[in-house]
Amino acid sequence: MLFAEKFQLRIPGPTPIPPSVQRAMNQPMIGHRSQEASQLVRECSDRLKPIFGTNQQPLILSSSGTSALEAGVVNTLAPGEEAIVVVTGVFGDRFSKILQRYGMIVHRLDIPWGQACDPETLKTFLQQHPQTKAVFMTYCETSTGVLNPVDKLTKVVREHSDALIIVDGVSCIGAVDSQMDDWGIDILVTGSQKALMLPPGLAFVAVSERAWKTIEQNPTPRFYLDLVSYRNQLEKHTTPFTPALSLLFGLKEVLNLLELEGLEQIYRRHELLKNMTRAGIQALGLKLMTSDQDASPTVTSIDCKDTDWQAEDLRKALRKQNVIVAGGQQHLKGQIFRIGHMGYCDPLDILTTLSALEIALKQLQIPVDLGTGVKAAQEVWMDHV
Amino acid sequence: MLFAEKFQLRIPGPTPIPPSVQRAMNQPMIGHRSQEASQLVRECSDRLKPIFGTNQQPLILSSSGTSALEAGVVNTLAPGEEAIVVVTGVFGDRFSKILQRYGMIVHRLDIPWGQACDPETLKTFLQQHPQTKAVFMTYCETSTGVLNPVDKLTKVVREHSDALIIVDGVSCIGAVDSQMDDWGIDILVTGSQKALMLPPGLAFVAVSERAWKTIEQNPTPRFYLDLVSYRNQLEKHTTPFTPALSLLFGLKEVLNLLELEGLEQIYRRHELLKNMTRAGIQALGLKLMTSDQDASPTVTSIDCKDTDWQAEDLRKALRKQNVIVAGGQQHLKGQIFRIGHMGYCDPLDILTTLSALEIALKQLQIPVDLGTGVKAAQEVWMDHV
Repeated sequence: MLFAEKFQLRIPGPTPIPPSVQRAMNQPMIGHRSQEASQLVRECSDRLKPIFGTNQQPLILSSSGTSALEAGVVNTLAPGEEAIVVVTGVFGDRFSKILQRYGMIVHRLDIPWGQACDPETLKTFLQQHPQTKAVFMTYCETSTGVLNPVDKLTKVVREHSDALIIVDGVSCIGAVDSQMDDWGIDILVTGSQKALMLPPGLAFVAVSERAWKTIEQNPTPRFYLDLVSYRNQLEKHTTPFTPALSLLFGLKEVLNLLELEGLEQIYRRHELLKNMTRAGIQALGLKLMTSDQDASPTVTSIDCKDTDWQAEDLRKALRKQNVIVAGGQQHLKGQIFRIGHMGYCDPLDILTTLSALEIALKQLQIPVDLGTGVKAAQEVWMDHV
Repeated sequence: MLFAEKFQLRIPGPTPIPPSVQRAMNQPMIGHRSQEASQLVRECSDRLKPIFGTNQQPLILSSSGTSALEAGVVNTLAPGEEAIVVVTGVFGDRFSKILQRYGMIVHRLDIPWGQACDPETLKTFLQQHPQTKAVFMTYCETSTGVLNPVDKLTKVVREHSDALIIVDGVSCIGAVDSQMDDWGIDILVTGSQKALMLPPGLAFVAVSERAWKTIEQNPTPRFYLDLVSYRNQLEKHTTPFTPALSLLFGLKEVLNLLELEGLEQIYRRHELLKNMTRAGIQALGLKLMTSDQDASPTVTSIDCKDTDWQAEDLRKALRKQNVIVAGGQQHLKGQIFRIGHMGYCDPLDILTTLSALEIALKQLQIPVDLGTGVKAAQEVWMDHV
């Protein structure tokens, strides 16, 4: 099948791997306690700092993003301690599930899915729960395409509480600005398979000085996810357990690519990709799930619940053209579809996706003028240039 | 540097990646909830069964071998419950550390490092600790090159106790025979980066029917390492969290290679590699750390503590020839060196390693007749053919 490996992977992770990153992962295997491995681990950690916006040393875990969320829980809290979780979708809900599993007392601040959390809302909620030891929030909520205003939310927490702030940055770190230290985030986690353009299998965790004090005292048992052991071993330029070396080979090249393009330009590119996607979707008469203000630069959700066609049928029609978009999760299944545009994605990919979308809509007998979505996106792009 | 990527990686993991496996890992990224990913996960799990010797469905974790050891602990025991750990080296000790971290009561059966555990010794120990809920043991102890007689140890436990049997097979499964179901192992774990010839980043866990009953009742909190969620998701042909997809692409090709060679032949090859290595080492007047009976087919330890030269100097001399062997761990540091011969390793690799070893010994002014070790290994090989 000639085109079996030629497809547009437009889901919010895993994302496509750049060719040079793929090649880098083909280096022959090395010992994980070798000098080469030590250099690699230390260098990758150092070069991740600006992406997190921190002077702390990001820790490298060989596991998926969820394990890093769990690390944020089991390292900071003991059973019976209180936590606020800002739930704006599936991944806020996951924080809540992990906390409950470990016996923490969870105060859920449920925000309607598709909206970001307003800082005033969090402030009021925080005042209602003065015993809160930690506040968990999601920077980009992958399931809805919302980018929470983490800078403002963090400010509110810091002004009204001593609670630690733990942020899930899995589906946006590396694509949107992050100033962990300046904003006062205590733990920021991300994964390899989103804006960092690697296969899944690595997670990264940065920890504030303040959080280390809590972590060192915290009695909740943990071994593979014990951040103290990662910190101690990183000081010796290594990891406590055998790391996913082929992904680290790739990470080094990813860092080359990010530094070459420059973080500011990368953030602008993702803004552009978002704006092009949103303009195209609207020009086609489809409904965006999020407001302009709440929209994430990494993933766009399209609301199909009031349409007389099925989101899943549209996804299938796109799949036949080798364009892969994501469906909804949990209660949004069949209600929305999502276009991922983070990492190795350029404006032409958006035009390609929109043009395929137009054909798919036509095939489903949905009234649409061919070229309309593409044109709107092209105009955004040309204005940007 | 022309030869920078040409080296003999003769450590007991990570091990070299076969070229076709490397190529397989270059497939473009796919969605982890796609039909392709589901097929891949299910097929890999199915085809792992004969390697474990089980009819159970091996679970696929995206993390290192240690996480799978931890899964064996937190899924089966509650704090305060009693466990026996057969400690024959670093990795038995690791089981013990994990158990202690989680508040289980550990009865350590310490065996002198370099020796296997005798079934009678375990039987006596078991009778001294009748409250034991689980027995933890290491199939191949990577740190010493000992292969414990897991078939006989399991028999003893089954005859004298209802304790669950949890076996660390990380550094031998896929290179030595394993009959999990017939022997009565309850949980058998392994990792990707040893005999399975993949980069580190995947761990595999097979669980007996009997163990599932305990696991389902066990209150110890766990999330990323909750085996129930892996089982439930595997029934739907998927994983609870985003799996390390590039390694799964590689795993499928590894399974092709293993099936093509045939497990019986693979086990014979590893026996041969062991015998060649041991014959060569002895012919050079060096001292093997383990007896013929206790020696693992995957890694050979050479005892240097009574020599008038330093093991670390020898390793450096080998490194200059682009031959990489492992040192000792913990109190064996500087006392031994270890030659890994598992996975993508053939008899010629052993001859290459021995010939480099002879030169390295000469360079350190250690009396040795060039060619002696190689000849002894050649003879073993020719007898075998």
